[in-house]
Amino acid sequence: MRRIMLVVAYEGTAYCGWQVQPNGITVEEVLNRELSRILKEDIRVTGASRTDAGVHALGNVAVFDTQARIPGNKVAAALNQSLPEDIRIQMSREVAPDFHPRHCNTRKTYEYCIYNDRFENPIGRQCVYFVHRPLDVETMQDAADRLVGTHDFKSFCNVHTHVKDTVRTIYTCEVRKCGSEIIIHIEGNGFLYNMVRIIAGTLIEIGNGLGQAADIEGILAAKDRKCAGRTAPAKGLKLVSIQYVDGDDREYIY
Amino acid sequence: MRRIMLVVAYEGTAYCGWQVQPNGITVEEVLNRELSRILKEDIRVTGASRTDAGVHALGNVAVFDTQARIPGNKVAAALNQSLPEDIRIQMSREVAPDFHPRHCNTRKTYEYCIYNDRFENPIGRQCVYFVHRPLDVETMQDAADRLVGTHDFKSFCNVHTHVKDTVRTIYTCEVRKCGSEIIIHIEGNGFLYNMVRIIAGTLIEIGNGLGQAADIEGILAAKDRKCAGRTAPAKGLKLVSIQYVDGDDREYIY
Repeated sequence: MRRIMLVVAYEGTAYCGWQVQPNGITVEEVLNRELSRILKEDIRVTGASRTDAGVHALGNVAVFDTQARIPGNKVAAALNQSLPEDIRIQMSREVAPDFHPRHCNTRKTYEYCIYNDRFENPIGRQCVYFVHRPLDVETMQDAADRLVGTHDFKSFCNVHTHVKDTVRTIYTCEVRKCGSEIIIHIEGNGFLYNMVRIIAGTLIEIGNGLGQAADIEGILAAKDRKCAGRTAPAKGLKLVSIQYVDGDDREYIY
Repeated sequence: MRRIMLVVAYEGTAYCGWQVQPNGITVEEVLNRELSRILKEDIRVTGASRTDAGVHALGNVAVFDTQARIPGNKVAAALNQSLPEDIRIQMSREVAPDFHPRHCNTRKTYEYCIYNDRFENPIGRQCVYFVHRPLDVETMQDAADRLVGTHDFKSFCNVHTHVKDTVRTIYTCEVRKCGSEIIIHIEGNGFLYNMVRIIAGTLIEIGNGLGQAADIEGILAAKDRKCAGRTAPAKGLKLVSIQYVDGDDREYIY
């Protein structure tokens, strides 16, 4: 039995998220179906990040076990032949049989993309959240700076979570403006349920003048979801990459 | 009777181009239908650029005449309320009753977007042409430089054209690389039928090593469509903007 890792990109618009569920088609389900067909085995992938319905990814990670002899690095091209056009494997390789994409130290990078103009732009609309009211990017960056570091992010976590430990480390949180687009680029050692979308919603409210950058300290201290802003829509969120790191924060895979 | 100008953005994927035709829905047809419904008159728009099926636009221009009293600058917001999400008016204003979007001196800007990597990227795939084989951007730029100026572009024109004068001026043609994306940015006083797509196809072949930058001079001199490269797919092409200029090339509208 060999374990193969996949780096998976998808536009999440048409999917009920990553994880198999009864209400609609998911990315995991499509991967299981097509891998099982190609490899003529019952394949079940395990994903690193179980992204929500409508969330996109450039580099989610999944693994699966197989008895097939196909070289690990050939799986990507073979699988891409039969995947729908909104899912594309970016890389595949064989990994150690005990490598688990969720039980490792990781550095995850997300981007939340806002289109801030008078009218929507139909080009690229699938992956941006349109905000009509002008946003103050400097104030948003001031607020973002206050999220960097190790904090209890309970206020930035959907209440429907089973996770007990809500302490996470954000390494960087940058608010970049490029034309009418504003991109919140955020890297951390892990993110709670809806954490990036709640951060985005909070920064948007602050950028709108509905709050101040200095409010972030109080929101963090409150450890109460009601103190943070609204959860920004899924369509603006993109999982950019997952890096697997050793104890000294040195990247060792992907 | 007043004449209103619209700046129209659309993702062209779902449309059989701009111009009304029997085989499928077009952007012009949707604008006529929704304007007629909103203004309670029979409205017919006239477009500046009759883009092909599948081509996108950030700033195509159209005008229409109306007896309605709606202020010109309010049309955009009113019309956007009822347009499908792949068409959005970016600006509207009243113009002189004799302003015709095609019978004016213009400076048009197009971009042709290529995604050049090992595998496709599902995010943004609607508006890029995927090229797997590595492209040499420097050689493409060398070739592009040779297109700048006033030339007879007959070799870069679809043979099914009614246009007799095939001399055009290209002001700038830049090949920009940004990550895995390669964007051909081109500005000129007008473009022949399929001209930008044939230029893109030719630059891609040269970037692929199937030709040399210096071939451009011979292709231009031949005045023969068969000497240029293939017509690159519509999905990579975007009409960025149309500037209306006076005789001294000073912009006077939009």
